[in-house]
Amino acid sequence: MPQERLPSRADNFSDWYNQLVLKAEMADYGPVRGTMVVRPYGWTLWENITAALDRRFKATGHVNAAFPLLIPMSFLQKEKDHVEGFSPQLAIVTIGGGEELEEPLVVRPTSETIIGHMYAKWIESYRDLPVLINVWNSVVRWELRTKLFLRTTEFYWQEGHTAHATAEEAKAETQQMLEVYADFAENEAAVPVIKGRKSGREKFAGGVDSYSVEAMMGDTRALQAGTSHFLGENFAKAFSIQYLNRENKQQYVSTTSWGLSTRFVGAIIMVHGDDQGLVLPPRLAPFQVVIVPIYKTEQERSAVMEQTERVQQSLAEFRLKLDDREEVTPGFKFNDWEMRGVPLRIEIGPKDVEQGQVTLARRDEKGRIRAPVEGVAQLVSATLDEIQANMLNKAREFMRENTHDPADYAEFKEVVKSGWADVWWCGEEDCEAKIKQETKATNRVIPLEQPGGQGVCIRCGNAATERAIFARAY
Amino acid sequence: MPQERLPSRADNFSDWYNQLVLKAEMADYGPVRGTMVVRPYGWTLWENITAALDRRFKATGHVNAAFPLLIPMSFLQKEKDHVEGFSPQLAIVTIGGGEELEEPLVVRPTSETIIGHMYAKWIESYRDLPVLINVWNSVVRWELRTKLFLRTTEFYWQEGHTAHATAEEAKAETQQMLEVYADFAENEAAVPVIKGRKSGREKFAGGVDSYSVEAMMGDTRALQAGTSHFLGENFAKAFSIQYLNRENKQQYVSTTSWGLSTRFVGAIIMVHGDDQGLVLPPRLAPFQVVIVPIYKTEQERSAVMEQTERVQQSLAEFRLKLDDREEVTPGFKFNDWEMRGVPLRIEIGPKDVEQGQVTLARRDEKGRIRAPVEGVAQLVSATLDEIQANMLNKAREFMRENTHDPADYAEFKEVVKSGWADVWWCGEEDCEAKIKQETKATNRVIPLEQPGGQGVCIRCGNAATERAIFARAY
Repeated sequence: MPQERLPSRADNFSDWYNQLVLKAEMADYGPVRGTMVVRPYGWTLWENITAALDRRFKATGHVNAAFPLLIPMSFLQKEKDHVEGFSPQLAIVTIGGGEELEEPLVVRPTSETIIGHMYAKWIESYRDLPVLINVWNSVVRWELRTKLFLRTTEFYWQEGHTAHATAEEAKAETQQMLEVYADFAENEAAVPVIKGRKSGREKFAGGVDSYSVEAMMGDTRALQAGTSHFLGENFAKAFSIQYLNRENKQQYVSTTSWGLSTRFVGAIIMVHGDDQGLVLPPRLAPFQVVIVPIYKTEQERSAVMEQTERVQQSLAEFRLKLDDREEVTPGFKFNDWEMRGVPLRIEIGPKDVEQGQVTLARRDEKGRIRAPVEGVAQLVSATLDEIQANMLNKAREFMRENTHDPADYAEFKEVVKSGWADVWWCGEEDCEAKIKQETKATNRVIPLEQPGGQGVCIRCGNAATERAIFARAY
Repeated sequence: MPQERLPSRADNFSDWYNQLVLKAEMADYGPVRGTMVVRPYGWTLWENITAALDRRFKATGHVNAAFPLLIPMSFLQKEKDHVEGFSPQLAIVTIGGGEELEEPLVVRPTSETIIGHMYAKWIESYRDLPVLINVWNSVVRWELRTKLFLRTTEFYWQEGHTAHATAEEAKAETQQMLEVYADFAENEAAVPVIKGRKSGREKFAGGVDSYSVEAMMGDTRALQAGTSHFLGENFAKAFSIQYLNRENKQQYVSTTSWGLSTRFVGAIIMVHGDDQGLVLPPRLAPFQVVIVPIYKTEQERSAVMEQTERVQQSLAEFRLKLDDREEVTPGFKFNDWEMRGVPLRIEIGPKDVEQGQVTLARRDEKGRIRAPVEGVAQLVSATLDEIQANMLNKAREFMRENTHDPADYAEFKEVVKSGWADVWWCGEEDCEAKIKQETKATNRVIPLEQPGGQGVCIRCGNAATERAIFARAY
């Protein structure tokens, strides 16, 4: 088992990322081009993400359900923009049970259409509203240039689909779920985000308004970390989702959809990772603590293992891994768990036993702490909280340092090479398209938090009432 | 909202089942023939099933992961029996990203092949073994005659896939998971099962030995409630899954696979349900307790709701639903929650307030109990335990009553019309095939628990050393 080093993050971020995902056994390439296998370590991280989100969904009144994977092609065609947006990416089943199908079936790229069809069947009166359903599943969108977690033909996500009596309620839901994503990102993943509205070019195919939380990766590129769409009556009209209101009149519902995917795993890797490997936030890490016993002689071994067992028992409340492998050295283990980003390592050697202490090493900072065995649980708890807070602060600081306010378009072109530009923008699609063409930076988001007042558009110089974030993006 | 009754279970079991699934809002038909939508109430039950199983999988050392939905057609062809078994049921993707694919892709009917491919890549030495992975996902097997939960083109399940250094270890794993299924079925779902080996005709396509837990439904038909397969080196050879043993020699691994699906939801419905609707086991029920406040005047309302709130707070440890709808009567609510099988109903009316009591009604037995508000949590806890035990006992009794030991083949033919036959069987496939042809009963399982000794085959009269269960099955 040779232990290879990662490429340097600063030298080649992309290469660093690709190798890290494989070496930390987060994921692997599937046999079909574009597909991904999520290995147990990566899937456990995703399970912890799903648990943290699902708690929040349920606390806001949502329930889970499941809808079929296979959707009649004709369903997608009912919403013009929707089918245009998704057509180039579809995987299509043409043979079923040994026979050519009369109507081809699409492998779900997203479920607005099939869920719309069912809602039309289920919703009759205002008493049936709101419908607040979430689904955990995977979707397929054809990709040729694979990047694990970030761009794969199949990816895992949740898709929330809600139906409301009024547009106002649906808009409030859209905002609520954006807040849920932001809260999750910052408080569970230690990933700071900017909440905002998507420009017309970037919004969901078939929706009215799209919102997202955007995060800055370690190479300063932006990543859309979660999206929440206000769909108005577009899908309600396409699928005849109507209800009888209190005045006994037929009305269209207003719908929303919102999603967060395994891309977020990529975000966690790219925001926090370093040249030694992953750095995982304690609240989501598959293992929060790893214990490495250290000994040479058999006599040392028995004393060390005895203390190890005692420490292990007192840490039962944490997600803990005891690395008692005999065939590798402690140094090998240190590197191994650093690669996998375990937030806190506890070393227990003969000297620790002698002194009735343990040695703690944080993944997010250099240096070791020695502490008495008594009270180790409180210390671990407090240290994990500190690590969590420190990771968020570091990421916030990095985002602040790399978000610029260029004075003119020339400076804009410079800063977006290695950072975000927070600028006045006229709101015209044409202007946005030219910025992309000239700088590769796209409009990531028009932040909900605006300074007010007005300025001039960074590119065209026309009057602008809103500021927007432009950046190169994943 | 008219409240329609179910067809009688005794008169038409199939109709009773189909309507119950719809009326209790467990599931609905999807737009594509053969597909199923699992509605929130049904999905919550499935979530509780998955949690109970996942706990057991993790306690026995397994971890979860995810493998791609789309499998190259050529993978299935690597194992001759496997492709033969699954070919007639495949859904095949022939178009991806707007282009005809060079190689068609199969929508996963089960994942032995693609997981075998990845294990070949990951496993190098004995140190990498065993690999103990489970996956929660859905699979597609073409069906034309839909029966919700029991026979659908797409269904939800878990599939465990393990690789071991020796056949003995793999066999032990196969048995261990069978025990896990039996323990889950009896102790969580109150569904008694018979553990046993499948006959050659009934085993998994591509496997060496299959085992299952079989349950008796309310109409006495059998349902395979979970399966565990010993695959020997079949898939290891097809996919070259080899490891270097301690003597530095290349060896094939031995593999297993095991699965339990949303069919089990059907089993819970069919084992416990009655003419009033579902009867759900407390340990898995989406709601364990429903509270129905009863009042006429505004004055009654405020007193009742005050007591209701107090009771609700003291029952925070349970999965509880407060039905405070104003637009329907208490009687309507009683029927509604009986249809949905909530184990325990608490009624709180003006008289209950006066007496400082609540009224409890069990779903599994007739009659009401009155009890003081003080100590209601302990009473609810004890009553739920009693309900759970009572449901298992009733189902056990039913299975015992309807399992027969016919003296000859004439009697065998009679008893399998409305029950199980537990008989000596010669073990010949030919004999099994004729029994099926002549009686519609199939060999469900050769129970692990055998009386020993020997007898004569119920059909052919040849010497037999094992007893087998024959029954009509879902």
